[in-house]
Amino acid sequence: MGKAKLRIAYDGTEFHGFQKQEGLRTVQGELERALLELLGVPTPAMAASRTDAGVHAIGQVVHVDLPFEPRVPVASWVRALQAYLPRDLSCTDAMWVSDAFDARHSVLWKQYRYTVDTGRVPHVFTRMYATHVPYSLDVPAMNLAATRCLGEHDFTSFCTAYAQQAKKIRTLYSFQIVRGPENLMYFDVVGRSFLHNMVRILVGTMIEVGRGRLSVGALDTILRARDRRMAGPTAPPHGLCLCQIEYPRDVLQTGDRSL
Amino acid sequence: MGKAKLRIAYDGTEFHGFQKQEGLRTVQGELERALLELLGVPTPAMAASRTDAGVHAIGQVVHVDLPFEPRVPVASWVRALQAYLPRDLSCTDAMWVSDAFDARHSVLWKQYRYTVDTGRVPHVFTRMYATHVPYSLDVPAMNLAATRCLGEHDFTSFCTAYAQQAKKIRTLYSFQIVRGPENLMYFDVVGRSFLHNMVRILVGTMIEVGRGRLSVGALDTILRARDRRMAGPTAPPHGLCLCQIEYPRDVLQTGDRSL
Repeated sequence: MGKAKLRIAYDGTEFHGFQKQEGLRTVQGELERALLELLGVPTPAMAASRTDAGVHAIGQVVHVDLPFEPRVPVASWVRALQAYLPRDLSCTDAMWVSDAFDARHSVLWKQYRYTVDTGRVPHVFTRMYATHVPYSLDVPAMNLAATRCLGEHDFTSFCTAYAQQAKKIRTLYSFQIVRGPENLMYFDVVGRSFLHNMVRILVGTMIEVGRGRLSVGALDTILRARDRRMAGPTAPPHGLCLCQIEYPRDVLQTGDRSL
Repeated sequence: MGKAKLRIAYDGTEFHGFQKQEGLRTVQGELERALLELLGVPTPAMAASRTDAGVHAIGQVVHVDLPFEPRVPVASWVRALQAYLPRDLSCTDAMWVSDAFDARHSVLWKQYRYTVDTGRVPHVFTRMYATHVPYSLDVPAMNLAATRCLGEHDFTSFCTAYAQQAKKIRTLYSFQIVRGPENLMYFDVVGRSFLHNMVRILVGTMIEVGRGRLSVGALDTILRARDRRMAGPTAPPHGLCLCQIEYPRDVLQTGDRSL
């Protein structure tokens, strides 16, 4: 029949990451279990990004192939899936898309937000979604350093040393640090694709700049070195959230399908 | 020596309310356990409001009597208590106050915020701090109805039927419904003191107005009836948060004590 695109949100706290693993509670495992209940047949869910354990999402995207007309119309999936999904995982949008759509390969850009709590003590409501960094951070210096990373670079220094990705060249479209409400601070990163742990290492490195332990100019040196040991520490997973994913209009269109 | 005032914050999800109960995890129990570790002697903590199970706080206030100079200066308690408190309970401010200060009886006003999520599916990040009400709510109608409750009234209709408080007259200083970010809606209530479940029944009744199941004028009838069965349902505890408590300046002053 075609393909459906789902936007999903999850609190990563109680999940062992996105990808299905035998005997562990994962987002893909819970989602596919719910889809089986909804559709009556096993239906693999392919994600735009296989987020790590502890990482959250409000705008993750998955696609599912539907070789038949589903017994519940796609337009009703948001509500219908709620009955089968746990409370820390929800589907916030569902639509038919073109057969050419691929949640991972069709991506135009993805936006991640890393949240830091700079208060003296961690705020109890955001303690699972923000990393506690109880230091004064120099926001203008961090933003200057962030601009050094924009554009196309070899990001080997910002990738876990044991990464399997052979090609380490990526393009960063945007990287901004802004103050949020209370004592929160947001690190917003936009790119088409990222190396393993790249966002968390970028954030960990910016925090070193914000604390005055690295200079703005050091970013050029770190990028050139192509050595993971030169960059800052990997920021913990629970501050990271996959916020938004954009696709080209043509792969979203379903042609003459009546919805 | 004197009295100290602590401002504390907690995520009520995993607590059986504020008040100490044998064998149950309560806010008072955890706080007094931490104070014992900090001070070396049992130190009762008296709260402004004994919040119910599941209710949150970012601005709860407690006082403690200190018959001796504490081994850790009060100015360092925020940081020092963090080591002894669980992650869902924190002390955000600590100061010496006048001996006349009483966290409960000195209150000028308290502000509660009740948060509702009107999205199609509950937002995963706020699911423990907001009640899911997936209906279109008429905000102007609710605000009109809320003004009918302002000032001094006998709030018997807005109090649990089995309440022990004899005097049911209370004064509401402010009651406003405002839209928040995403699909959140806030019900902000200010008063000096409240009957048991009064805020949650006020909110439950406003939601009935917002859904068009009660008229604005019905509020006058409900208040006059002095009958719990006339008002709307008690909104669930997890949407409620004790936000701020204000005290008169004179009971906060410590006289000539050097801090």
